[in-house]
Amino acid sequence: MKDALKKLQFELHCYGQAEGVLMCDGETAAPRGAAEARGEVMAFLSQKRYELLVNDETRKLLDTLWEKKDELDGETVRQVEILREDLDELTRIPMEEYAAYGKLVNNSSAAWVKAKETNDYALFEPYLKQIVEYTQRFAHYHRADLPAYESQLDSYEKGMSTAMLDPFFGMLRKELVPMLDMAKSLPPQPAFVSKPCAISAQREFSSWLMDVIGLDKNRCSIAETEHPFTSGMNRSDVRITTHYYENAVLSSLYSVVHEGGHALYELGVAPEYQFSVLGRTSSMSLHESQSRFYENLIGHSAGFLRFIAPKMREFFPDMMQGVTDRDLFRAVNHVQPSLIRIEADQVTYPLHIMVRYELEKQLMAGTLSTRDLPEAWNALYKEYLGVDVPNDSQGVLQDTHWAGGMIGYFPTYALGSAYASQMLHAMQRDLDTDALIERGDIAPITAWLGDRIHRHGSRYEPNDLLKMATGEEFNPAYYVKHLQQVLSNLA
Amino acid sequence: MKDALKKLQFELHCYGQAEGVLMCDGETAAPRGAAEARGEVMAFLSQKRYELLVNDETRKLLDTLWEKKDELDGETVRQVEILREDLDELTRIPMEEYAAYGKLVNNSSAAWVKAKETNDYALFEPYLKQIVEYTQRFAHYHRADLPAYESQLDSYEKGMSTAMLDPFFGMLRKELVPMLDMAKSLPPQPAFVSKPCAISAQREFSSWLMDVIGLDKNRCSIAETEHPFTSGMNRSDVRITTHYYENAVLSSLYSVVHEGGHALYELGVAPEYQFSVLGRTSSMSLHESQSRFYENLIGHSAGFLRFIAPKMREFFPDMMQGVTDRDLFRAVNHVQPSLIRIEADQVTYPLHIMVRYELEKQLMAGTLSTRDLPEAWNALYKEYLGVDVPNDSQGVLQDTHWAGGMIGYFPTYALGSAYASQMLHAMQRDLDTDALIERGDIAPITAWLGDRIHRHGSRYEPNDLLKMATGEEFNPAYYVKHLQQVLSNLA
Repeated sequence: MKDALKKLQFELHCYGQAEGVLMCDGETAAPRGAAEARGEVMAFLSQKRYELLVNDETRKLLDTLWEKKDELDGETVRQVEILREDLDELTRIPMEEYAAYGKLVNNSSAAWVKAKETNDYALFEPYLKQIVEYTQRFAHYHRADLPAYESQLDSYEKGMSTAMLDPFFGMLRKELVPMLDMAKSLPPQPAFVSKPCAISAQREFSSWLMDVIGLDKNRCSIAETEHPFTSGMNRSDVRITTHYYENAVLSSLYSVVHEGGHALYELGVAPEYQFSVLGRTSSMSLHESQSRFYENLIGHSAGFLRFIAPKMREFFPDMMQGVTDRDLFRAVNHVQPSLIRIEADQVTYPLHIMVRYELEKQLMAGTLSTRDLPEAWNALYKEYLGVDVPNDSQGVLQDTHWAGGMIGYFPTYALGSAYASQMLHAMQRDLDTDALIERGDIAPITAWLGDRIHRHGSRYEPNDLLKMATGEEFNPAYYVKHLQQVLSNLA
Repeated sequence: MKDALKKLQFELHCYGQAEGVLMCDGETAAPRGAAEARGEVMAFLSQKRYELLVNDETRKLLDTLWEKKDELDGETVRQVEILREDLDELTRIPMEEYAAYGKLVNNSSAAWVKAKETNDYALFEPYLKQIVEYTQRFAHYHRADLPAYESQLDSYEKGMSTAMLDPFFGMLRKELVPMLDMAKSLPPQPAFVSKPCAISAQREFSSWLMDVIGLDKNRCSIAETEHPFTSGMNRSDVRITTHYYENAVLSSLYSVVHEGGHALYELGVAPEYQFSVLGRTSSMSLHESQSRFYENLIGHSAGFLRFIAPKMREFFPDMMQGVTDRDLFRAVNHVQPSLIRIEADQVTYPLHIMVRYELEKQLMAGTLSTRDLPEAWNALYKEYLGVDVPNDSQGVLQDTHWAGGMIGYFPTYALGSAYASQMLHAMQRDLDTDALIERGDIAPITAWLGDRIHRHGSRYEPNDLLKMATGEEFNPAYYVKHLQQVLSNLA
């Protein structure tokens, strides 16, 4: 029976890897016109994966193993647990309802594109209204014992709840928002950051950066896409992408370091978990914690910038002409409350998430109607970020998530950064991280994270893993302190 | 039942496309260390494709359709015919024998690599001996009614036979070999062809060339690999690759034109054949005929070179300094009998194939032993190409084909070029090809081939298609005449 369990996981992996490579190839090497046929092939593979899991034989296998779980080792039990959860997740929504929802999401996404282009929220609102209604029902299918939004949070990440997020965002609101006035008095970002740098030099610099953060190029490659992403097929096959802009060298620099953090997680999963469900990573928040660790805690630190500055002067002499290490640090860590989430600096970023969190919570509870959403959005942007939203395209219509049915997902973006700070705090009991970063010696840091996070894949639930790694439950204080430190370093 | 037939073909296609993308991605974007895990995933997909075709239900479906083929349209009958052939091909060899053969090929290929590296044919000979024995048996499984080599030829390309190849190579031997002495008196290839050209300029030039030969970039992309190849997923998703050498601009130029010819075939298959077995191309020789048509008959012509020379002067001013159109023509069409097949010019190339054809024939007939093979190889190189083979690494060990069990495949390389010349002859009844090529107007030529070859996919057997397209059976005279013309143009 353990053989059957292993075979099931291997075959699920094969379909998943094939889909992953088709997706990745579609975003990079494939011609544009290949999309439609690729879509049909991917739908077929996804259907085969579904059929492999959702059938009486598999259910019986998993149930039988679950019944005698006391006789099994912990890793096998965890495999069965994850597969049973996947199976439940795939079957809890009646087929017809799911098909209707698929259509709705399709139409909703198309309406959102048009609404954003034409700055016409009214065009999108009827779709969003229906998405909220569907999501409320689906949340009930997932966990009938929980309020809808709690269930949604749990479905995106086991253990995520308002009991955990309310104090987190409460602390941000109390400690961080009042400090933002200070950011307004900072000088604007210096002009040198947008001086042109040859793409060919940026490519070579990326390759050097990959070495600095310790990405094993035998198992991790880099490509170029419109939007950077990481895609891990398995621990010996991870892809990162970046986008080079001639006039924004920092953009690709931090894409490589951010995606590099994601990639180190995928590369670090224990070899014995290859092809099993334990070879997946533990959660979206933990994944984001790794990218943010490398991007923000390492990449934006004064020590790291002192380490890479000589190399930057070598690769980009024109841009770096007359730029001191301190100038570079200030430019990289520039803070400026703004309208658009994906362009935000690390200090104001979580406030963008906080706006979405509060609005989602109310939408799902039924205390805010989709009709009143833009007004509520604009009010919160004013309150938290101090900015006036000039139009809905730059406001409530900026993100694709809700249009695609992803309500309850945004908080993982902020949680990840907070986890990272908590990990750094714990790590500093064992390592002199400042000294390591200052000399570009990142390997001991990665090894620390590797032992405590990466290698475990999805062996543990995210909350448990965080506690095992750091010695305490989720504690947002380290993150808030870090953000305050970033601000005060600029003063 | 026609629905079941359509579904079967679609699903076979899906696995095939997934394998194709994994292969292509593996050669281009994937990190090197990904190979092992990818191998396992590809083996799984290939196994699923096998199971889809080889089972009682599918056999019954195909047999039932075949029985009532008189009631079906021609395209459906052809689909059933191809699928039945595939099924027979997959089941004719007993499983255990096939597995043992797989192991042998694996060991044989490894031994060949080592033998070639160390110039030690004796290391490889025992493996080749076994390969020949297996191939003789397998040939019997394929067509018990034919001598072994005839059966092998037929298995690689339906209709290919010594009755067709003997007169072909006979004509080459009679008409071409005596002319080669003249090639020895030609001046050596001029030095300008190995002047350095920036890779970035070569990339842009490739993009321009793709436009010239009419590759639709919405459906065809280009990447870089060690060895150039074309991979067609379906008619809206074709990939070509090239390899840029700083000191050999002509290498990538003709790779792009050669692979471009392959790609035009894949891109030109009728849209209604998408996802069906008719969407495949008709044969390897016909595929090669298209690549050779664009590479040799268009790409090496004086008119084409006059058309691209101004652009070459623009992209590669240093290399082209003082080079006349006539200089370029002579350099491109340089003829020099040599040792290595894959480096041969178009005139001597078929003689390399002829050597292999004659030796394969004898090996399979049992009139030549693997032990005596090197001596026989060297004698034929002396006789046909007038060159002395200094060692086996540059002689009988140069190609991977036999080591991989491919005995009977080489002739398709030469047939393709001969088909291309026959097509050009027929085309010239309808089109003034010289005038079109001279002004870079390739579209009417591609349209001609598109109507007569490309769009038909595998609707017809290769011999039938050639006859339909050109109005006559295979006739090697056009090809021999073309090669003589190339030689005399250099005089």
